[in-house]
Amino acid sequence: MPSRPTAGGAYKMVLVVRGELRLTAGKAAVQVAHAAVMLYQEAERRRAPTLEAWLAGGQKKIAVVAPTLDAMLELQRTARGVGLATVLVEDAGFTEVAPGTKTVLGIGPGPENEVDRVTGGLPLL
Amino acid sequence: MPSRPTAGGAYKMVLVVRGELRLTAGKAAVQVAHAAVMLYQEAERRRAPTLEAWLAGGQKKIAVVAPTLDAMLELQRTARGVGLATVLVEDAGFTEVAPGTKTVLGIGPGPENEVDRVTGGLPLL
Repeated sequence: MPSRPTAGGAYKMVLVVRGELRLTAGKAAVQVAHAAVMLYQEAERRRAPTLEAWLAGGQKKIAVVAPTLDAMLELQRTARGVGLATVLVEDAGFTEVAPGTKTVLGIGPGPENEVDRVTGGLPLL
Repeated sequence: MPSRPTAGGAYKMVLVVRGELRLTAGKAAVQVAHAAVMLYQEAERRRAPTLEAWLAGGQKKIAVVAPTLDAMLELQRTARGVGLATVLVEDAGFTEVAPGTKTVLGIGPGPENEVDRVTGGLPLL
């Protein structure tokens, strides 16, 4: 991730998919989209100053993978600890996984360097 | 799609990925999330009555595939023709595709039966 080109992007959103669930591409995409919309709502609710900056920079989003639920929850604690907004998507569970399964952790939008300090070591989805 | 269980869901959003681009799972997920956030913004802007109903029903989203750009644009015309909101994601093009490439068509949120009439025949991502 640190080697990926950035989109004029001082701000980004990171969507962390729970790798152990081995979701199909379509299921993963939908869960990632749930997280993105939830973070957007959360930023609006807080009138987060980062929201406008993130939108102006092209709504940069990155999808990465954490191996397990424990790893995902640990990332959430770390992100919250540095003041980044987080959301945890729970699937309705009609397909692929049981109802209430936590599938994706969303972080941000936040300053790129802060977000990278939390998720920069994770592989891309 | 008509055979998929619905999430108390009278309303849904459909994200149509352009199959010929053969995006990686991660790239597709991010483009789908762009479309979902853009549709959400668009629905807020129009104060769409469907937005609250869709949120109350669990923000149902489905990711499907259309083979080509032409097929995607034809779906957009059809969706607009029946009054559904649409967005077309253009990728910034830093990876995988050239800048400005149209990657995903977003439709909705709209009544499930109306949306299915447009995209119900497409395979899931």
